[in-house]
Amino acid sequence: MELRKDPITRSWVAVGHPEQAAIAADPCPLCPGNEGNTRTILALPDGGAAWQTRVFPHFDPLYRIEGDPARSADGLYDKMRPVGAHEIIVESPDHGLTLAQMPDEQIERVLQAFASRVTDLKRDARFKYVTIFKNHRALAGEDYPHSHSQLTATTFVPRRILYELHAARDYFQQKDRCVFCDIVRQEEKQGARVVDSQGDYAAFCPYASRVPFEVWLMSRKHNHQFENPRPGVNRRHLAALLGRILRRLEKVAQAYHLVLHTAPNTLQTKGELTEYWKTIADDYHWHVEILPIVEVRSKSYSIKEVYFNALLPEQAAERLRQIDPSR
Amino acid sequence: MELRKDPITRSWVAVGHPEQAAIAADPCPLCPGNEGNTRTILALPDGGAAWQTRVFPHFDPLYRIEGDPARSADGLYDKMRPVGAHEIIVESPDHGLTLAQMPDEQIERVLQAFASRVTDLKRDARFKYVTIFKNHRALAGEDYPHSHSQLTATTFVPRRILYELHAARDYFQQKDRCVFCDIVRQEEKQGARVVDSQGDYAAFCPYASRVPFEVWLMSRKHNHQFENPRPGVNRRHLAALLGRILRRLEKVAQAYHLVLHTAPNTLQTKGELTEYWKTIADDYHWHVEILPIVEVRSKSYSIKEVYFNALLPEQAAERLRQIDPSR
Repeated sequence: MELRKDPITRSWVAVGHPEQAAIAADPCPLCPGNEGNTRTILALPDGGAAWQTRVFPHFDPLYRIEGDPARSADGLYDKMRPVGAHEIIVESPDHGLTLAQMPDEQIERVLQAFASRVTDLKRDARFKYVTIFKNHRALAGEDYPHSHSQLTATTFVPRRILYELHAARDYFQQKDRCVFCDIVRQEEKQGARVVDSQGDYAAFCPYASRVPFEVWLMSRKHNHQFENPRPGVNRRHLAALLGRILRRLEKVAQAYHLVLHTAPNTLQTKGELTEYWKTIADDYHWHVEILPIVEVRSKSYSIKEVYFNALLPEQAAERLRQIDPSR
Repeated sequence: MELRKDPITRSWVAVGHPEQAAIAADPCPLCPGNEGNTRTILALPDGGAAWQTRVFPHFDPLYRIEGDPARSADGLYDKMRPVGAHEIIVESPDHGLTLAQMPDEQIERVLQAFASRVTDLKRDARFKYVTIFKNHRALAGEDYPHSHSQLTATTFVPRRILYELHAARDYFQQKDRCVFCDIVRQEEKQGARVVDSQGDYAAFCPYASRVPFEVWLMSRKHNHQFENPRPGVNRRHLAALLGRILRRLEKVAQAYHLVLHTAPNTLQTKGELTEYWKTIADDYHWHVEILPIVEVRSKSYSIKEVYFNALLPEQAAERLRQIDPSR
C-alpha cells in the first residue's frame, strides 16, 4: 500500500491495501481471556489484567509504526509510505454491551483512553494527526460486534479536518472569535436544534446537518485539544451527555459513525510544521460528530458533492429531545 | 426545503426535501408514447416526436426554476431558497439499451444534449453551476431502469468543483500551466494508468483513484467548457472513447456514477461573480469522472475523510486495457 495525494483536491488516498482478512469472530478476539494474541498498549483503570478498557494494535493495520514516510514526488504527483498507527480500543470487557448501555463511569474511562492515546501518539513528531472513530453496527461497517473504537495516527491531516482548520482560522482572523464558540453560543440562544447539555458540554443537531439526526457534541468553553481539557472541566459530564445522546440515537437509527475531531499535532518536524500550524491549531475547537445511518441510502446524491437531508435539524432535535434517554 | 451552508466546510446542504415519491415505473415514464406527462425541453435530432434523446423537467425536482434564491443570514449561518433546475435526459427511446450498448452516433447525441442544456442554463445568471450526472444501475441509486442522466443547475458551485477550481488556479499561478493539461501529459508519458484514447481525448485511471477502476476522460488540449469545444475538435471521438470505456467497466463493475465537470457560469450577477471568477474558470479543464461500484462497501472509511482503495490504479488500468471493448 502507498499513500497518494490527489493533485486536484489535495486529499490523500490510500491505494493498494488489500481488503482486510476477516478475523475469526469466535472466540471474540476483543473479549477478556484472548489478550495473548495482541500486545496491550493501554489497559484502564490500572494497567492490569482486570481491564475495563483495553487498547491494542489493529490485527491488520492500515498504517505501520516503523520507518519514515519518505514523502517524494512522482512527476507532478506526491506519494509517501503508509507510516502511522492503527489501534483498536475495546470499550468494555462485556461482549454484549453497547457504548450507549454503559454506565457514565465506563464511558468516561473510554474517553480517558481516547485522550491518553492521542497524547501519547502526538509525542511522535511524524504523526500530524490522530483520528478516533467508531463504526457502530454492521451497517456502519463495524469490524467486530464487541463494542470498540478505532484510532489512526497519520503523517497527514485528513481533508475534512484541514477544511475545518482553515475555516476556523479565517473566521478568527476576521472576527477575533472562534467559529465553534460562536456556533455553540448561537445554538443555545436559538434553542431549536439543541438536544441536551450537561456541565460545560452541549449537544445539538448542526444547522446544515448532512444526514437525519446528525449530532455534534462540544465544549462551551474554547478548547482546541480534546486530550488536554481546561482546568476545572469535568469529563464525567461529557460522558453522561454522550451516553444520553447515544441512547436517544439508538431509538431512531440502525447504526452510526462517531468521529472525534481534535487539533492536529504541532510538534516541529523538519520545518514542515511551523508557527502557522500552531496558530491554526489554537484557533480550532475539538468536537464529536455523530452521523447516524437511518436507512440504507439508495440515492447517491453525495456524488454531486451536495448533501440532501430529508429531515430538518430542528425536527430532528425536537424528536431526539422527546426520547427518554434513561435506559 | 432550503439550502444551508455549513460554516465549517463551506459546503451547501439541501435540508428538508422529503424523500422523492416513487414514480410508477409501468408504463415507463421515460419511454416514447408517454411524453404527454412532461414538457419537452429538448428533443434531438430535430426537436420532433421521433426523438433519439429527450430532456424534460424532473418529476419531483430538488430545485425550482422560478424566483430569487434570496440568500440571507441566519445569525452566523447562511441560507437560500432552492432555486435552480432539475432535468432528466433520456438517452435513447430504447428501454432496454444501456449507454454502453449504444452506437457512437447516439452517445454523441447524448453528449450534444448535455452541451446544449449547459449552454442554455448558463444564460441564466442566477445559476452558478450546472452538474450533469448519471447513476447507472440500482446499486448506484438510479431512479429508472431506462437509460438516462440527470442535470441540476444550482445557485452555488458544489464543494468538489470549488476545490478543483482553486487547485487549478493555484497551480496556474505558480507554473503558468494547467494542472489538468500536465496530468494528462504525464499520464500519457508514463502510460501505466492509461486505459484508452481517441483523437484529442484520453481515458486513464487517476493516480489517487478513490475507488477501484475509477476512470477520468479528458481532452488533451486545454478547454475549460465542455459545452464549448475548441474548433476542429471532433466530439464523435469522445463518444467512441466513452462507449469503449463503459463497455469495459460494465465487465468489472455492477454499477457506476458518472459526473461531468465543467467550468462554472461566469455571467455577472450583482457583483458576486467578478473578474476573479472569469480567471478561475479559464484555468479550469472540463473532464468526466466515472466512479464504478465494484461491490457494496461494508467499511465506511470515507467517514475519516481518507479514501482506501484496495486496487492500485496501474493494475486497474492494465485489467481494463485487456478487456475487449467491442460489444
